[in-house]
This record gives sequence, structure tokens and C-alpha cells, in this order.
Amino acid sequence: MGLNKWINSVAESGLELLRKQRLNNKPTLSINELCQSLLRNKGEALGTALASEIVTAYMLLTDDDKLSFFQMLLQKYTPDPEQISLLSKEYLEQKSRNAFHKLSQAVESPRQKLFRQINMAPTGTQTVVNIRHDLLKILNDYPELKMIDDDLVHLLSSWFSPGFLELKQIDWNTSALILEKLIAYEAVHEMKGWEDLRRRLDDDRRCFAFFHPALPDEPIIFVEVALVKGISDSIQNILAKNEMESVEKFDTAIFYSISNCQTGLKGINFGNFLIKQVVMQLENEMSQIKNYATLSPIPGFRNWVKSQIEKNELQILSPEESTLLKLLDNEDWFLDEEITASCQPLLLKLCANYLYHSKQDNKPCDPVARFHLSNGASILRLNWLGDVSAKGMHQSYGILVNYHYDLETVTENHESFVNDGSITISKNVMKLVN
Amino acid sequence: MGLNKWINSVAESGLELLRKQRLNNKPTLSINELCQSLLRNKGEALGTALASEIVTAYMLLTDDDKLSFFQMLLQKYTPDPEQISLLSKEYLEQKSRNAFHKLSQAVESPRQKLFRQINMAPTGTQTVVNIRHDLLKILNDYPELKMIDDDLVHLLSSWFSPGFLELKQIDWNTSALILEKLIAYEAVHEMKGWEDLRRRLDDDRRCFAFFHPALPDEPIIFVEVALVKGISDSIQNILAKNEMESVEKFDTAIFYSISNCQTGLKGINFGNFLIKQVVMQLENEMSQIKNYATLSPIPGFRNWVKSQIEKNELQILSPEESTLLKLLDNEDWFLDEEITASCQPLLLKLCANYLYHSKQDNKPCDPVARFHLSNGASILRLNWLGDVSAKGMHQSYGILVNYHYDLETVTENHESFVNDGSITISKNVMKLVN
Amino acid sequence: MGLNKWINSVAESGLELLRKQRLNNKPTLSINELCQSLLRNKGEALGTALASEIVTAYMLLTDDDKLSFFQMLLQKYTPDPEQISLLSKEYLEQKSRNAFHKLSQAVESPRQKLFRQINMAPTGTQTVVNIRHDLLKILNDYPELKMIDDDLVHLLSSWFSPGFLELKQIDWNTSALILEKLIAYEAVHEMKGWEDLRRRLDDDRRCFAFFHPALPDEPIIFVEVALVKGISDSIQNILAKNEMESVEKFDTAIFYSISNCQTGLKGINFGNFLIKQVVMQLENEMSQIKNYATLSPIPGFRNWVKSQIEKNELQILSPEESTLLKLLDNEDWFLDEEITASCQPLLLKLCANYLYHSKQDNKPCDPVARFHLSNGASILRLNWLGDVSAKGMHQSYGILVNYHYDLETVTENHESFVNDGSITISKNVMKLVN
Amino acid sequence: MGLNKWINSVAESGLELLRKQRLNNKPTLSINELCQSLLRNKGEALGTALASEIVTAYMLLTDDDKLSFFQMLLQKYTPDPEQISLLSKEYLEQKSRNAFHKLSQAVESPRQKLFRQINMAPTGTQTVVNIRHDLLKILNDYPELKMIDDDLVHLLSSWFSPGFLELKQIDWNTSALILEKLIAYEAVHEMKGWEDLRRRLDDDRRCFAFFHPALPDEPIIFVEVALVKGISDSIQNILAKNEMESVEKFDTAIFYSISNCQTGLKGINFGNFLIKQVVMQLENEMSQIKNYATLSPIPGFRNWVKSQIEKNELQILSPEESTLLKLLDNEDWFLDEEITASCQPLLLKLCANYLYHSKQDNKPCDPVARFHLSNGASILRLNWLGDVSAKGMHQSYGILVNYHYDLETVTENHESFVNDGSITISKNVMKLVN
Repeated sequence: MGLNKWINSVAESGLELLRKQRLNNKPTLSINELCQSLLRNKGEALGTALASEIVTAYMLLTDDDKLSFFQMLLQKYTPDPEQISLLSKEYLEQKSRNAFHKLSQAVESPRQKLFRQINMAPTGTQTVVNIRHDLLKILNDYPELKMIDDDLVHLLSSWFSPGFLELKQIDWNTSALILEKLIAYEAVHEMKGWEDLRRRLDDDRRCFAFFHPALPDEPIIFVEVALVKGISDSIQNILAKNEMESVEKFDTAIFYSISNCQTGLKGINFGNFLIKQVVMQLENEMSQIKNYATLSPIPGFRNWVKSQIEKNELQILSPEESTLLKLLDNEDWFLDEEITASCQPLLLKLCANYLYHSKQDNKPCDPVARFHLSNGASILRLNWLGDVSAKGMHQSYGILVNYHYDLETVTENHESFVNDGSITISKNVMKLVN
Repeated sequence: MGLNKWINSVAESGLELLRKQRLNNKPTLSINELCQSLLRNKGEALGTALASEIVTAYMLLTDDDKLSFFQMLLQKYTPDPEQISLLSKEYLEQKSRNAFHKLSQAVESPRQKLFRQINMAPTGTQTVVNIRHDLLKILNDYPELKMIDDDLVHLLSSWFSPGFLELKQIDWNTSALILEKLIAYEAVHEMKGWEDLRRRLDDDRRCFAFFHPALPDEPIIFVEVALVKGISDSIQNILAKNEMESVEKFDTAIFYSISNCQTGLKGINFGNFLIKQVVMQLENEMSQIKNYATLSPIPGFRNWVKSQIEKNELQILSPEESTLLKLLDNEDWFLDEEITASCQPLLLKLCANYLYHSKQDNKPCDPVARFHLSNGASILRLNWLGDVSAKGMHQSYGILVNYHYDLETVTENHESFVNDGSITISKNVMKLVN
Repeated sequence: MGLNKWINSVAESGLELLRKQRLNNKPTLSINELCQSLLRNKGEALGTALASEIVTAYMLLTDDDKLSFFQMLLQKYTPDPEQISLLSKEYLEQKSRNAFHKLSQAVESPRQKLFRQINMAPTGTQTVVNIRHDLLKILNDYPELKMIDDDLVHLLSSWFSPGFLELKQIDWNTSALILEKLIAYEAVHEMKGWEDLRRRLDDDRRCFAFFHPALPDEPIIFVEVALVKGISDSIQNILAKNEMESVEKFDTAIFYSISNCQTGLKGINFGNFLIKQVVMQLENEMSQIKNYATLSPIPGFRNWVKSQIEKNELQILSPEESTLLKLLDNEDWFLDEEITASCQPLLLKLCANYLYHSKQDNKPCDPVARFHLSNGASILRLNWLGDVSAKGMHQSYGILVNYHYDLETVTENHESFVNDGSITISKNVMKLVN
Repeated sequence: MGLNKWINSVAESGLELLRKQRLNNKPTLSINELCQSLLRNKGEALGTALASEIVTAYMLLTDDDKLSFFQMLLQKYTPDPEQISLLSKEYLEQKSRNAFHKLSQAVESPRQKLFRQINMAPTGTQTVVNIRHDLLKILNDYPELKMIDDDLVHLLSSWFSPGFLELKQIDWNTSALILEKLIAYEAVHEMKGWEDLRRRLDDDRRCFAFFHPALPDEPIIFVEVALVKGISDSIQNILAKNEMESVEKFDTAIFYSISNCQTGLKGINFGNFLIKQVVMQLENEMSQIKNYATLSPIPGFRNWVKSQIEKNELQILSPEESTLLKLLDNEDWFLDEEITASCQPLLLKLCANYLYHSKQDNKPCDPVARFHLSNGASILRLNWLGDVSAKGMHQSYGILVNYHYDLETVTENHESFVNDGSITISKNVMKLVN
């Protein structure tokens, strides 16, 4: 805050100077020229000001400009295979520090050096995050640019190390500037506005976010927790304005929503740390809490069921069952008691199988399952009609799942999961699995 | 602060858990085993706690243990030349992203990954800085360990990017915890205690330091500034408890001391940024300041003179002059007016030549000169008996030099210096140069 | 914040102790008994805990209980006329410090001592403010209780001295806890919710509030300011989401809303200080601002017009004019161009006369006029259809007035106003006055 | 901080304005004229600026000027006995609110109004505290000025209500600005400098101070606490740099020094609240602490012994004992084992009697005893040679006393002490009392 203002004023002074000095030469430099200057300059003597110019120049780029910029980065700043080959031979022969150093320099892409230099500008970190945000949008169409993404992921993983992140509790004392971002970033159960938000920050709720010192007003990821009695089976109950029980009666913390805020940090995993830090924080604060579990969506379930109906790969469905399931194309099926009664056992069975058996590279296909199971959580319970919102019905026929975070087994679970892909699952859900 | 306490409590909970889990296996793991666990674990599931154990284990190592630890890091965690050679061939042939990615992974030393993992522990950043501190102490005796230092420098340069540093003004409102570190870290003109410190934080003085968010109570580098009328020629005047003039009369800011605080960050250059940010900060705050200059020691001068007397490489000294200079071995020579009078012109001439001509790799031998000239400053003036302390007399026969920071020419100077090693120097000092 | 938590925990410890000690005696004390204890105790030894009990006990009182409580305060804690009479004789005879001291003690009502003791409890200040809030509600029905109000006003004026108030700028960085209070307390131009609030905190708006250290989350009074070009003539323009001009073009700061937040502090005048501090603050921050003026409602105008129609005391209305004005009882009159055209000159003339001539005790009847004129502002301009909201039409036929805060004449104006009730008024408005 | 800067800038703008306005009249006003202006002005319209002028004017007064100022305050601003007498008659007859209000106004001294107005200036509160500081210095010579002091005490007691004070823990994280004041204000056991201070802020020590929001950098009163095992019997042990035991072993908190910082607040009792709040705070923080006691000086003991020797009022000394005691005039008597052995029983007996019996107005003559016993503490133990510093020997032949703060009995003790002057004392010390 104070910091930012100050850096900005410094950068402004620097920029002015830069402008003066350039007056004698040519009026403006393209972002490509700026990048070259910055790298040549080695970040010394007004490096901050040059970096600031790139930040400003980048903000003014159109989508087409950005594509050109990325292609330039690919062409001009990719390590040279010939040189690397020579240097790796040298290293193989000499096995010396010097040989390795030269090789290592040659292999590290100049883009990384460039991004590190940009990071010296006042809002440099945000700019690099934004660059990745923009890159991700076009990666499908220009897969060759993935090399640039590799560089960005490498750098951002180092900069956004959990050791540099600050866990902050978010509550009604938090600034509106940050709170409105929660409303915007909430990705699981939409908030309709300030009233919705306020409910989620009540005395029987908790919200925690990670922040990075270089992005002081930007949550990186946040988790919403409900303090309740018994493990929740319905998200609508959690979101409702129910009457609060006295704090002493709570015995369970339900993690009902985790949202990543910065698309530019996609794939850099903080959720894992966030959940465990919050579990430990709540343990310290409230000894009466005995259970830590999620109430999670199953975003891939319905699509998987549909593909089973079509292809029946797993041969899990009888023809009658397939027919039955087609009834569910009607949006309001769950209001019809008869259909509901006949489908419930089938859908729960399918869901258990989906979570347990549907895998890719030996890991669950369902992204939320993959995330929690990889963290060492276990599958605890399926909740029929746990989310009757349009989104919930659409994703998973309204089924929600509780993943259990039992700190005593979490490491063991995680190890088995990582080593042989085995999933920890409660007896009750296991009964549903074929 | 709040952050640290909290992370510590989380880490403690994690550590306890780790201990419980390990009870069933074997009681304690060596630091080597911990490192292996941490890398295999990929930082997920209790990674923070494992990292904390390494931090704790490292603190308990003896000097011999540390040496073994470093040797283990060298042997087990150095990139494999054979594999690199293969992968670089693959990249040369395929020129694919995938091939490069594999090569890049192979070239990045596993030590870097390990240090990044350690950084997730509560005091992980401090630990990595300490590891380098310990490593530097033995590098002369075990030069093969320089490969480890390369990894550390690479990581620390990225983490301690100026974009992550916070400039803070230090004054009498600062906590004693930080102030006492200034007394301890002051490396140029020793502070004898709190009274000395207080003088340097008076209303006509300024002090600025860089801080890193992960080391909130540790200054990284700090600079001391005197606000004066006219460019100072004596450090004793600056350090004296003189009567302060009214703020409006100041026209000059003298940077009279710059101290790096963390030996573990040696060679990672912040001073450059610090000085320029402080110049811009003072420009914003006090429009009446017209000159920015240092009053700097010349630490290598006397030794250079002595080697000239012995070897006379530059053939700069007549035999009479050499004889004259031998008089200065007497410690109190400067109290003898006659000697002083006869030596002054000679020493000033020698000093100008030392600063201007004594170079290595086309850069000034004198480290302070190299630093400021590389930043784009110029040599402004030599000050006879500018520092009559024992240290000043010992280093440079009491001569001090002003380097001038003129923001209008600083980039130009820097460019010439970097490109062709040319040094900007005032006419008056140039007259003294052969 | 930190303070409050801490005081609360201390008070809780104290309360527990108090409960233990009382267990042996009788179970609970009435608020009357608690007050007696507190006064007898002289605030020493657990005074804070006793005060906390009164705070708690007061919160539990019903409206009837509160009335009894006030009546008890009146009967038991009113100074004794007989004793005072004796002591004033003594003072008259002796003219001694001692005699005066005793008299002074006798005249100071024991209620004041009691309230001062209550103020030692954690939320004591808030409680005393609340007591007055409750008292004000029943004062009309129980005018004898005004003696208690006199005591409260005396104390609160001393505690809420401008010297103890802190001016804070309110913006989007402020906590939601405080921001939602602005929405609730806004008394002039209603805010419909967070969107409305946000507009009022935009970059071309300013909001400042006074806070008291003992009520850290409670604004005492706040003012909303619009930065505009030229003096505003329409509140709807100010509240609209217009496009912002660049900051440099602003030349005027319009104070368009001032709201007192604590009814318990009614009649204790901060607005005066708030406006002047904000003027000086803006002068420091933005030298381009040349004019400081309000855009103010005229709450008493329409009622005054109606009474003129009925009684015609000032003989200001011709029969035709009275007839004309009756057309305005139709709510939508201002949509009828003909009526509007014919009424405008008459209403503006009446309004100027109302502001200038309608006085009570030699001060303007209109409360907003009284406030600003007494502060030293002048009447600058009447704005036809300046507020076409239902409220604006209802209060003043939509007319708004600008009061001008010219720091160069504000003292002079204030002095004339206080001494002989004279009102400073612009030539243009003066022309409208009979 | 931020607040202060801001208020200052506002006051400066105001002052400038005031100067401009006055230019046309006469150049400067005396402090007397300023006071008159301020009162007449009723604090509105630039009241803050006028108050600031008085603050500035007061700072420039010489000692003689101040005396004149006080005499002016006495003559011009003392309530009028005649008027009071009339108004009290009116009140006696009418018993009306209005009559009481007028009487009450007449009795409240105009000085109080004036001081309240001065309090609106930026450093107004500090100025009023300073005024009392200056007044106290001359009160002995000009006892008639005590009427002014009565006014100041009345106001300051209200402003410095415990409800407005903030308890802060002082440690090595505190700013040097505040820490150096502890060194200066320590009144019981002198600190020789920063090293001494640091010992008192170690991990086995605690320090707490009260602050007032209007004097943010000025501690009002502070207490130093030692965490130890068993009740301490020697102040030299506490002040020594002994090795710290682990925190878990502590069972006792010893209050070994309480210092009031502002002489201008003399006689306004915070110590009572400070001790109890600190006891409760430590109870919350460290459940292992079982005992809370002081290690206190007995400042009046030696003088009392001397007067007993001379007058033998209590007939407590035999002629032999009197002779024996005369040996103690030798400064180094306590190094002589023989003398020490023979005197110890006698001195302890005398000391117990001094504390228990030597009373004035039914309260202990010893000021420290009076303070703690009035707070509800009890006399626990006498410590022979508990303070062998020159000051300790001089005050009380080196004897120190522990007062015990047992929260379970503190109210009871306090009540007995206040009601019938009875002192709670341990059996062991009681045995020594005649």
C-alpha cells in the first residue's frame, strides 16, 4: 500500500528520466526493443524504469499485438539446440563447474531472464501473471507457445512458493476492495452480491485466503468453511440464512468452496497447502471441532454417465438402466418422486463407481476428486440431492460428495495415492462400488 | 509478525503429526533422509512440516556435519552429464517442446528443487540464506562446492528480486529489534552504540533499508544519508554531534555508508537499486536538494601504493617518492605538518591514478569504485584527510572520494562503463591523473 | 481492535471473579444496587468489573426498566438544594478554596460521577452514548428527565472533544463493517446499497468521518464531497454514474451530504470542525480546488410556505400567489412546464426570504441554514429543481441552496452572525429578498 | 502518527489564516487575549486554530510569565461567590432544572471551559498536562493557585479515564522513541542505558504501559514484571543477567517496579488498574503462574526509624536499641557481619511495625504501602537485604517487602481497608508486630 505508492512514484521519476534521455534518440521504443534493452542492460542503471515501460507497453497491446509478442518471445528467446549440444559435450568431457555453468546458462531460456527483469517494475509480478493469463487463452490455438508457458510456470512456481504466501482470515472487517473480489472470484457456488457474501462471513462461517506480498490486494485462492454440527449433506442448507447455533455446539468444519482467483496462476497448486493450514488453524482455535470434511461438487459425473449410456465402455449399465437414465434429461425430474425413487440407487452406485474407477493416467478423471484424494483425503459419503441448484443438477444430478481430511491418515493416504493410485474410501461408499 | 507466529503454530502442529506418524517406523531421520523424503514427496501432503524438520535439523548441524551435508548435496544432487548429453541430442534432433522440457529438467540441479522445497517451511527463506552463509565460509577450502553456490545464487537472485523488496525508512520510531541490527551490521563507519545510532537518525540524517517479506525483521541492505550544505569532505564532521542547520538550508544529500547485512546474499546486487530509489525518494520529498553524492572509502588504495613501492609496475613513482612514502609507515604521520605537506600532492596524484587506472578485467580494482562507477556515478573530488580514523588512515592514508550521482547522466555513464570500461571523472581530479 | 479484544478478556476475568465473590452473598444485584456499589467503591478495586456488570445489566433492561432507571437517577442522584445553599453561603463568607471545593462537589451531580465510573468498562463509552440515545426517546414525555440529559451532554461534550477525534478518509479500502454503517447512517440522500455507496467513494468523490478512540468501529459523523468543475446545481447529477473527468479539471469541492451517526451525541457539534478540517485537508492535497461550497437541502421551506399561505404572517403573499401555490399540492407539478414556469420566480423569491428573514431567537429557523451560517458560510445561490427526488420536492419544492465556505471570510461571517445575527448573502440571492 | 501529522497540517493552515486575518488589526495577541478570544468564540469557527495559538504562546512563556498566567487565571476565571449565592437561593426555591442549570454553569469554573477549548488544538491534551506540570512546581510557594489545580485534576481525571487508556505490552519490538522514555521515566530502580533496558524486556520479563490516544508516543505509567520460580527476595537478583529458566518452570510474577511518567498527571490513579489488568492478562497468557506479588521499596522506613530514635513516640525502642541503631549511620554497616546479625531482628521488627502501625488519617504513612494495601493487596513477607543498592540502603536499610495480589481476596481486603483501615498481613509478618 504505502509500498506501492512509493514504488510508483519512484518508477514515475525513473520513467520521466528515461523519456528525457530518449528524446535525443528516437521517440518511442516498441515492446520488443524494450525487451532487448532490458536484457542487455542486465537490470542495472534504471532497470526498474525500463521494466516499468514494458509493463506499460504490455497494457496497451491489442490481442493481435500480444500474439506477435508471444511469437517474438518464441523465436528470439528460445535456447539454441546447437549451442546446447556443444556445451553438453563439453560438460560430459570436463565434468567441471565451469562447463556446467555455461551449459546451464544456455539451457535456461532467455525468456525467464526477461520475465525476472520485468518483475523489478512496480507492478511487475502482476504483469507476469497477466502475461500468462493472456497466453493461456490462446494456447489451444497456438500449441507451439507452450514452451513459453513452461517458462512462466517455472518462474511463478518459485515466486509463489507457499513460503512467500500469507494466510489471512477474511471477515467483515476486511476491506470492500478485497471482499468484492471474493464475490467476483467465487467459482463453485455463485454469490449474488453483498448479502450472500455477508452470510458466508457470519460468526458460524470462516473464510481464509492466501495473499502474496507483491499483490497485496489480490487474493490468490480462498476457501469457505461452515462450522456445523454433524457432517453437512446439503449445500443449500449451508448457504441458507439459518439460525446460528452457539459456537460450542459445532463439532465439524465443512470446506464447501475453494476458488482459485488468478487464472494466470493456473496449475500452480496452493489449495493443498491452504486446506491443511486452515485445518491446523481451526484446530488451534477451536478444540471442539472433531471432523474436517468437504462438501464437494462432482463436476464430471453427468458427462461420464452420458458417455456410459452411449458407449457403455465399462459395461456398467443394463439396457433398462440406460432407458431409466434418459428420463433425467427432463430438467425437473427430481421433483417427480417416482423417478427420483427409482433413480436414486442407480445414480449413487454409478457415482461411487465413477469416483473410484474412472481414471486417466492412474488418477481419477474427476478434477475435484483428483485434487482432494491426491491431498490425502478419503471418500467419506455421497449426498443425494445435496445440491439442487441448476448447476448442481447439471453437473452431477445433484449429488455431492464429502471428502474427509483426517490429519492422522492424510500422509499415508497421500503416499498410497501417489505410489500406486489407490484411493481411500469409507465402507459405506465402497459397498456401492462394483 | 502475525504471519510468522501463525506459520510457526501451523508448522508446530505439522511437526507433531510427523512425529506421531514416524513413531511406528524409526525414531529420527538424518537430514539426508529428510531431504530425500522432501524431494520424493514433491512438496505435497505435509511438505511444509518436512521442510520444517530440515530447517530444525540444519540448525543442529556442527561445522563438520555441514561439510558432509554439502558434500552429499554435491554427490547426490548434481545433474548427470550422460543423461544431459543424451537429452541434448534429442533436443537437437527433435527441437520439440517435450525434448526441451526433459533436457531442461535434467539440467536444473536437484539441489534447486530441494532448496525450493525447504523454502516452504516457516523460516525456510532464512534457512536457505544461512546455508549459503555457511557455504561461503568454506568455499576457499573446498572449491568444488562452488557448484552448490551457483544454485543458491540463482535461486536467491530470483527470490530477492527488487520487485519483492520493500524500501523502508529507518528512524527513531523503528523498533529496537531492527535498530540494534543496524548497529551490528554497519560495515563502513562503526557505530559504538545507541548514542552513535541516534545521531545517524537525527532530523538532518536519513536512513533507508530494503526488507524482504519473508525476513520481516532483517534489513537486507541499508544506506545512511547526511543532509548538508555543500558536498562534505570529512566523515568525522558528518559523524560529529554538530548543531543542525534548518532543513531549508540543505542543498546536498551525502551517502556516507552502505552496508550489506546478510552475508548469505553476498554478490546479489541491491545497492544499485537502493541508491537510486533513495535519490528519487529524496527528490520527491525535498525539492531543495540539488546534489547527490557519496563520501566513500577507498579500501584498496594503501595496499596498491605499497605494491607500487615494491614492484613499481606502473613506473609511477620516482625513487625519491618511494622513500618519502616510507615515512608514512609511522602511524601518526598525519600529525606531522611537514610530512603531511610534502606527501599530500603525491598521495592525491597516486589516488587519482589508482582510481582511474588500476583495473582488472577492464574494471576498477577498488571494489567501492567499481560499485559506484558501474552504477553510473562519476568521480567528483578527492578529500585529503577526509577520514582520520585508524581505519581510514589504514585503508587509504585518510583520503576519501566523492562519487557523484547525477540522474541526468547516470545511464549514459553506466552504458559507457559497461561497454568500454570508460570512467567519468571531473576535470579537477582528471588533472591529477597521469 | 487488539485493544478491544484484550479489554474484553480482562473484563471477563474480572466478571468471573466478581461472580465467585458474590456467590457467598446474594446471587444477583439490580442495576440500582450495582450503581450504588460502583459509586461507593470509588472505582478502585475491580471498579472495571463492576462497571462491566452495569453495562451488561443495562443491555438487558426493557423500556419500562429504563424509565425506572432514569427516574431512580433523578431521585437518588440529584444535587441537594439545601446543602448547596449552605455551602454557597460558606463560600460567600470564606471565599476559600476549601469552601469552593465542597460547594463544587455538592453541585456536580452524582450522576456525572456514576457515568464516569461506567466509562471505565470495556464498552462503557458506547453504553453512556446509548443511555443518552434511550433517554432522548422519552424526553418529550418525561421532561423532568432533562436534568439527566444536561449531565450527559456535559460529559459527552468533554469526552468527544475535537481534540480526541480522529479524521479518517473513507474509501473502498475501508472495512465492510464501517462501510455498511455509512449506508445505514446516511441521513440526507439515501443510499440504496453497495452500488450507491461505491459511486460515492469513486475517484472523483471524497468521504471523511470523525472517529473516537473508544468507539473504533463507529463513525461519529461523516461528510460526502464531490469533486467537480463549477459549482453543482443538481444533486441528481452528483449521484448519477456520470463519466469522470480527469482530476486536473476539478476546481470545486461540493459538500453534498453531512450525516450525524450517533443519536446519543445529538446536539454535540462536530460538523463545524469536520467541514473545516476537510476543507484544509483538500487544500493541502489538491491545489487546483478553488471553491468550497455545499449543495444543501432546505428542510423547513415547504412547511413555512404552507404556514404563510394559511396565516400570511409576513404578508409576503398576494391572494393570487397563494392560489397559484395551491397547484403545487399535486405531486407531479414540476412535470407541467406551464405551472413550473409560473411558480419558479415566486418560489425562488419566497425561498430567499425564508432563508434570510425566517428567524427564531435571531437565528434562521431552517436548521441547515442555521448550521452553515453559524459556521461562517454565506448563502451563495438557489438552485431551481436541484433535487427532484420525492424527498427534495416534499421538503423544498425541489430547491437546493449552495452555502459558500470561503476561508478568508469565514471568521468574519461567523462573528457577525454570532454577534448581531447578520447573514452573509450573495448579491444575486439578495436581489430576491424583499 | 498519521493522525498527528494531519492535525498539524490542518492547524498550520488554520494558523496561517488566523495570521492573515489579524494583519489588518494588531500584530500579535497576548496569551491572555487569546484565552479571552477562545472563550468568547465558544470554540466555533477556527476554534482549533485559536487553541493552537494558545498552545504555541504557552510554550514561549518564561517561568515568570507562567506565574502571571496562573495568577490571571485565578483572578479572571474564578467563579463569583455573589452570583453563586443568588443562584443557589433560586435553586432552593424553584428546584427547577433551569435554576440548577444556571447554578451549575456559575459554579463550573471558567478555567475548565478554557482548558477544554485548549484541548481542541493538535497537542492540546499534552499542553494541559504540561500546564499542570508547571503549576505543581510552584504550588508550594503560591498555595492560592491550588484552585486552578482542582480544575485541572477534575478535567484530567475525566479525560484519562481508564476507559480511554490502552494497555500495551512493551518489548524489544517497541520503537526506540518509546523505549528511551522508559529509561528516562523509570523511577524505582534506575536503568543505566539500553543494556539495562534490554534485560528488563527479556523473555522472562514483561513490561506493560498505559497509553492515551491523544499522547500516542507517551507512556502514562508502566510496570515491570519478572517471571520467576518462587517469590523473589532480592531486587539485585532480578536485575542481574542471570540465566533464564525455561518458561514452563515459572510459577510467580513479581511486580518489581511501577513508574508514573507524567508529573502533570500526579495523583490521578492508574496504577491500581494497571496492576489488575496485567494480572488478568498474565493469567490468560500463562496458566502456570500461581502467585502475583510485588517486590517493593519501603521509602519512608529509615526516616521513620530516625524519628523514633529521636522522639521515641511509640516507645518502641529501648535505649540499647537506639544506641545499636546509631551504628547504622556508617554507610557500609551491612558489610560488617556482626552488626548485621545484631540489627536484623530489630530492624525487621521495626519495619513490620512501621508498615502496620504508622498511619496518618487511618492510612499507612508509607506511600507504597498505602498504594498496594488500598488496592487490596496484603503484606506477605519482609526481605532482609533485599535491595543493597545505595538507594535501597538509604531508604529502608535494604529491606524490601512483598505485597501479595491474591485476586480471590483483593476486593474483600480493599473493602476492609477503605472502611475501617484494617490491613491484611501474613502470619509471619504479624508475628513481628507489637
